[in-house]
Amino acid sequence: MKNNLYTAVLLILLSVSNVFSQNGNLITSEAQLQEMKLALKSDNLFHSAVNDAIEEVAPYLKSGLDVPVPKDLAGGYTHSQHKLNYTIMQKAGMLYQLTGNEQYAELIKNTLLKYAELFPTFDRHPATRSYSPGKFFWQCLNDANWLVYTSQAYSSIYEWLDAGTRDKLNKELFRPYADFLSVQTPQFFNRLHNHSTWANAAVGMIGLVMHDEDLIQKSLYGLPFENLYAKDNDGGDIIRADQKKAGFLANIDHAFSPDGYYFEGPYYQRYAMYPYLMYAVALDRNKKELDIFNYDNKILLKGIETLVQLSNEKGEFFPLNDAQKGMSYYSRELKLAISIAYEHGDAHRNGLLSIVKELNAVPLNYGGFLESNAIAQGKATTYQKRSLLVTDGNKGDKGAIGILRGSRQEYIMKFTQHGMGHGHFDRLSYLMYNKGDEVLQDYGAARYVNINQKDGGGYLKENKTWAKQTVAHNTLVIGDRTQCNAKVEKAESATPELYYFNAEDENIQIMSAKDSIAYDGVHQQRTLVLIKDNAFENPLLLDLFRADLPSDQKLRMPYNYKGQMMYSTFDNQPLNSLPVMGKKDGFQYLWKVGEAPSKGNFNQVNWFNNKVFYTLNMATSAEDSINFVLLGANDPKMNLRNDKAFHWLKTGKKGSNLYASVLETHGGYSYITELAPHTYSSIKNVNVVYNTNAYSAVTFENKEGKKWRFIMCNNNSSSSSKHKLKIGETTLKWKGVYLLEEI
Amino acid sequence: MKNNLYTAVLLILLSVSNVFSQNGNLITSEAQLQEMKLALKSDNLFHSAVNDAIEEVAPYLKSGLDVPVPKDLAGGYTHSQHKLNYTIMQKAGMLYQLTGNEQYAELIKNTLLKYAELFPTFDRHPATRSYSPGKFFWQCLNDANWLVYTSQAYSSIYEWLDAGTRDKLNKELFRPYADFLSVQTPQFFNRLHNHSTWANAAVGMIGLVMHDEDLIQKSLYGLPFENLYAKDNDGGDIIRADQKKAGFLANIDHAFSPDGYYFEGPYYQRYAMYPYLMYAVALDRNKKELDIFNYDNKILLKGIETLVQLSNEKGEFFPLNDAQKGMSYYSRELKLAISIAYEHGDAHRNGLLSIVKELNAVPLNYGGFLESNAIAQGKATTYQKRSLLVTDGNKGDKGAIGILRGSRQEYIMKFTQHGMGHGHFDRLSYLMYNKGDEVLQDYGAARYVNINQKDGGGYLKENKTWAKQTVAHNTLVIGDRTQCNAKVEKAESATPELYYFNAEDENIQIMSAKDSIAYDGVHQQRTLVLIKDNAFENPLLLDLFRADLPSDQKLRMPYNYKGQMMYSTFDNQPLNSLPVMGKKDGFQYLWKVGEAPSKGNFNQVNWFNNKVFYTLNMATSAEDSINFVLLGANDPKMNLRNDKAFHWLKTGKKGSNLYASVLETHGGYSYITELAPHTYSSIKNVNVVYNTNAYSAVTFENKEGKKWRFIMCNNNSSSSSKHKLKIGETTLKWKGVYLLEEI
Ligand SMILES: [Ca+2]
Ligand SMILES: [Ca+2]
Ligand SMILES: [Ca+2]
Ligand SMILES: [Mg+2]
Ligand SMILES: [Mg+2]
Ligand SMILES: [Mg+2]
Ligand SMILES: [Mg+2]
Repeated sequence: MKNNLYTAVLLILLSVSNVFSQNGNLITSEAQLQEMKLALKSDNLFHSAVNDAIEEVAPYLKSGLDVPVPKDLAGGYTHSQHKLNYTIMQKAGMLYQLTGNEQYAELIKNTLLKYAELFPTFDRHPATRSYSPGKFFWQCLNDANWLVYTSQAYSSIYEWLDAGTRDKLNKELFRPYADFLSVQTPQFFNRLHNHSTWANAAVGMIGLVMHDEDLIQKSLYGLPFENLYAKDNDGGDIIRADQKKAGFLANIDHAFSPDGYYFEGPYYQRYAMYPYLMYAVALDRNKKELDIFNYDNKILLKGIETLVQLSNEKGEFFPLNDAQKGMSYYSRELKLAISIAYEHGDAHRNGLLSIVKELNAVPLNYGGFLESNAIAQGKATTYQKRSLLVTDGNKGDKGAIGILRGSRQEYIMKFTQHGMGHGHFDRLSYLMYNKGDEVLQDYGAARYVNINQKDGGGYLKENKTWAKQTVAHNTLVIGDRTQCNAKVEKAESATPELYYFNAEDENIQIMSAKDSIAYDGVHQQRTLVLIKDNAFENPLLLDLFRADLPSDQKLRMPYNYKGQMMYSTFDNQPLNSLPVMGKKDGFQYLWKVGEAPSKGNFNQVNWFNNKVFYTLNMATSAEDSINFVLLGANDPKMNLRNDKAFHWLKTGKKGSNLYASVLETHGGYSYITELAPHTYSSIKNVNVVYNTNAYSAVTFENKEGKKWRFIMCNNNSSSSSKHKLKIGETTLKWKGVYLLEEI
Repeated sequence: MKNNLYTAVLLILLSVSNVFSQNGNLITSEAQLQEMKLALKSDNLFHSAVNDAIEEVAPYLKSGLDVPVPKDLAGGYTHSQHKLNYTIMQKAGMLYQLTGNEQYAELIKNTLLKYAELFPTFDRHPATRSYSPGKFFWQCLNDANWLVYTSQAYSSIYEWLDAGTRDKLNKELFRPYADFLSVQTPQFFNRLHNHSTWANAAVGMIGLVMHDEDLIQKSLYGLPFENLYAKDNDGGDIIRADQKKAGFLANIDHAFSPDGYYFEGPYYQRYAMYPYLMYAVALDRNKKELDIFNYDNKILLKGIETLVQLSNEKGEFFPLNDAQKGMSYYSRELKLAISIAYEHGDAHRNGLLSIVKELNAVPLNYGGFLESNAIAQGKATTYQKRSLLVTDGNKGDKGAIGILRGSRQEYIMKFTQHGMGHGHFDRLSYLMYNKGDEVLQDYGAARYVNINQKDGGGYLKENKTWAKQTVAHNTLVIGDRTQCNAKVEKAESATPELYYFNAEDENIQIMSAKDSIAYDGVHQQRTLVLIKDNAFENPLLLDLFRADLPSDQKLRMPYNYKGQMMYSTFDNQPLNSLPVMGKKDGFQYLWKVGEAPSKGNFNQVNWFNNKVFYTLNMATSAEDSINFVLLGANDPKMNLRNDKAFHWLKTGKKGSNLYASVLETHGGYSYITELAPHTYSSIKNVNVVYNTNAYSAVTFENKEGKKWRFIMCNNNSSSSSKHKLKIGETTLKWKGVYLLEEI
């Protein structure tokens, strides 16, 4: 079947190639098209993409595309049909350019003429649920999507069309549509918001097709602000009174940190990148002088690179803030983004190919063609994920995400901006992965996207009441309260601050951040140190979490672990009638299934997850204790997963309190050989030897009697400052923020 | 490194091949060896196996192998070293035969001479924990392992050795060792038990090497029974007074059902097959007249085939009885078994190659060589798993396992013998898999094999108190008690019986079995019907579980599901202080997390597991109710997984009670596209329309209004009998045990 199709395509190609050159050039140049046609003479990924598109479009060459009068919300017939239309038209446009088969051009033309008929017959979509009701869709966002895709289709046949039809479509459909999405809906077009990015891209792209400089300028720089605020007052403060700029470039400036991080987190960044990149490709082709891919130090390409780095070994994005787990760079959006990065970027180009190879598919564009060629030539190399600091805030001064990678473990610490409505109260939390598996998790969002039986697929109420709460994260909970009392405004008022990040030495990588907002009067600092030493199978994670308290308070450090508990030195007593742990701040969903006092000043918790063992080696004091907890109380609809955690409790005293621990990843298991090497930690002791606001110092020892000391200076991160500290009888001198030595 | 090694091997081979032919032929003939050497001239799986063995043996060519005085139990140095010795010697023997490098022969000779020195210096291993203390190991079982492997090594150099050395080894090591394992330890050698199979194989194989017909006869037919019972009385009734036969052939007769099923279940079968097969290969080469692979209708080859069929799509054995999940046909034992099946079997030969291909490794034997060749020639085809009935009992009359397969779903119903000490109280339970994922699970064994922190890696007490109990299985629990009151003797006293099995029509496959022992006075029957119809995305599972009760009793049907509950028509109320459900029979480990009465006479439970949706469509009555339960109460060491279940409760009445349900597998989900098609069941009704001990009849209807009726005759499974039944106003007539019709 595929083979026959292939032969058929080939015949068409051989018979018609070079007899047409009527390309509007929005996305692809004439020269690129000539190159791409060559790919169709052999078997390769790009050719497969073409064949898939041929199969997909084929039925509509006969039937045409229905253009119904808009009526439905998302999911309904008219909504789905208009979505289908722009997808098919975009593909038909590319196929027309590649094959010269005029049936594709006719399909687009006929469909657009139906839209031109329909357009003037009504004002807006009958549904009024959106702050910006659309035309063919219930919200303008979908209309902007339509125009981003359809501009590409229209461009493909622009030169092929007779002048009369072109003129009619320009005047009766596209220019009015662009006005509809911009001047007639400024609250949609002129925001600093991902919705507006779609609007800017849509209007700009159709402007480029029609050579309409007015539309292009509006798309790049927004509408003038005069009068807009007034109009806008009806619908609330959608356009902020202090906003000075709008349009595509302003949205780039606003949304991305200098490291290419998008403020809502990777899950939303994946979606938000799409219009930026599509419009950028069109601008790069048609407005060279803007040099868009070099804009702001190549910020768009950096955005793709950063997004790829913000994923685990399986390519799944770190589920920070509201994020459904499992979304990965194998998504449609990233397939396109990666092809653009491959075409226009210079860093890691051939590494990106390993992702494409895994996906075994390229998009139907010039970047996809280049990827296909390069893969056929065996150029794919491994993509290098590395330790890195990703700053947040459009000036890069609003905290960051720190990622330490060593062996196959990944540690991700979060101390960014709150992230607006999608943010979680998770300051100074960290996630841990090993071999792409979650070991210490962030719950992610409480949501089953698009699964109707779970509240229509939207955010569940537990997203707010559980998933966003601090106890759902691996960070300190003070007084059993959520950070910032779970108030977004408070959380937005100040960001945690980067104290130190250095991953240059693979034997000791450090990230450290501070926060003073989460709990009134409390100064917190977490320092994560990844130590690689031949004495250990894998790098160790030393965790120093310091809390300077204004008064005595209960401290609770949750470890939201995945896997099966193996043993702990705590002598756990079962609680048969499970108490629910609280009434608010997420504790209403937790059952306490066991609790135990600590034993002496060293304790261990050892668990097992997907064939690997993990041990938390804890410096404890006599008043410390542990809770074993299970998620799922007060959840009659079973919206939540029955995940587990252990909580390390301390009696917090006024002044400096320190959680010090060493997490070891060790051993293995095979369900086939049933061999179980190294199931116990090699660590036999962890001790806090110094603890003030100025310095934190610990020692740890392995079973062979080797011993190490680590000291962190907490109030001077300069690498040139000199330190002198007396611990017990020993006086230590060193330069720089930390000292690690075997003793 | 590997390449250099490869070149080195090649040079050795080219220089020495054909200059030696001193092979004892236990396992491999001279002609086979000549063929196998050809494989070493190119790159292939067999060559890789040879290279791996060369690397593994290399260090000992220099250092020799230590032969310590026995002292330790399993895990200790002397135990591990003696194990290493036989592994290395066996490989060295094969390498000597393939390469002619005499260093390998010398290593074997020198090691054996050390054993010959050591052997006469002491009586038995100092440890006395075993019923049959060994020589070099704490138990004879390990010594028999030693001899099975070492016979192969010895055979390899048998003709190469000078006559004096050979004579010395025969007289001072091997013949005494064979006597030690047989006449001197009859309680080990003469049982009908997998331990004795090892003993029989060991004695027989060394007998074949030494051409010692006395040993061969003992191995095949056992020791005479005179005087044995007397000796045996010291240690209990290890040899049963009614036992008439012993030896290898008797063990084959005893252990396997005519369908090749081993009575302890697949997890143990995998281990038990090994000595049967190794000895069979040796007998096939050296005692052709026995025609061992054709013995009892090719029972050994059938055993391998059956074992492969008793696994899910991932190759993991169904975890029936005591079994650690994850054990699969990618284990070392199966690698060997499959190579033997490939060499000697005729059915599905090239299908087996797909398993070898997945494993990407072949064993170091002639079968492995054939596999390697065939794979290089592209002969591998897909292995066809099918619906089948696997009878239990050495006459095939002690129940069975039924497997229905359709689309990618697998349903496994168990109604076998109890399985002695490893059996579970799980009569009429079923497991369900989809795409290799568990959907309705058997808990498996409560054990972490070889993981020391969990009770030394042995069976946990929860294995008996939870994993074996009926409520841990998907079968009816009456009066909240375990079947047979959890007494093995009672369970062994009678087996459930096959009532009907027919999988010939892929549109309707049926399995049905009965039991009258599990609960006093209760006659139970479960009929599972897999119905394929274009109206549904996947085949439906119709489940009719009938219980004829002597008095009113509480009925509870557990569904030990995997995944996340999506919704149910039961209006669940949360129970905040979780009650523990009982004090015994497994209920002491269960928390009730929710309960609800049924709503009307049709209810649904819908859940989601690994991107697929499942709905149980239940014919309910007003008194029915549901419990949602969570495993983990009374488990302070957290030995158990926090698995979930829902229990469908009925108020059982004296007489015939019927659980009728239709399980639908439907829809899908992608975490990348976030599309969620078909998340709801297509079934809108299930009704019991007739329910007596003679007939069970249900109707079910889909949302398009199509309706089906299924009738099962419960007391006559003949396919030729004629039936007539009046249901309501309709009189139905049909031939055969069931009737399915669209109405
Ligand atoms: Ca979170
Ligand atoms: Ca079981
Ligand atoms: Ca009904
Ligand atoms: Mg910027
Ligand atoms: Mg958003
Ligand atoms: Mg038999
Ligand atoms: Mg056994």
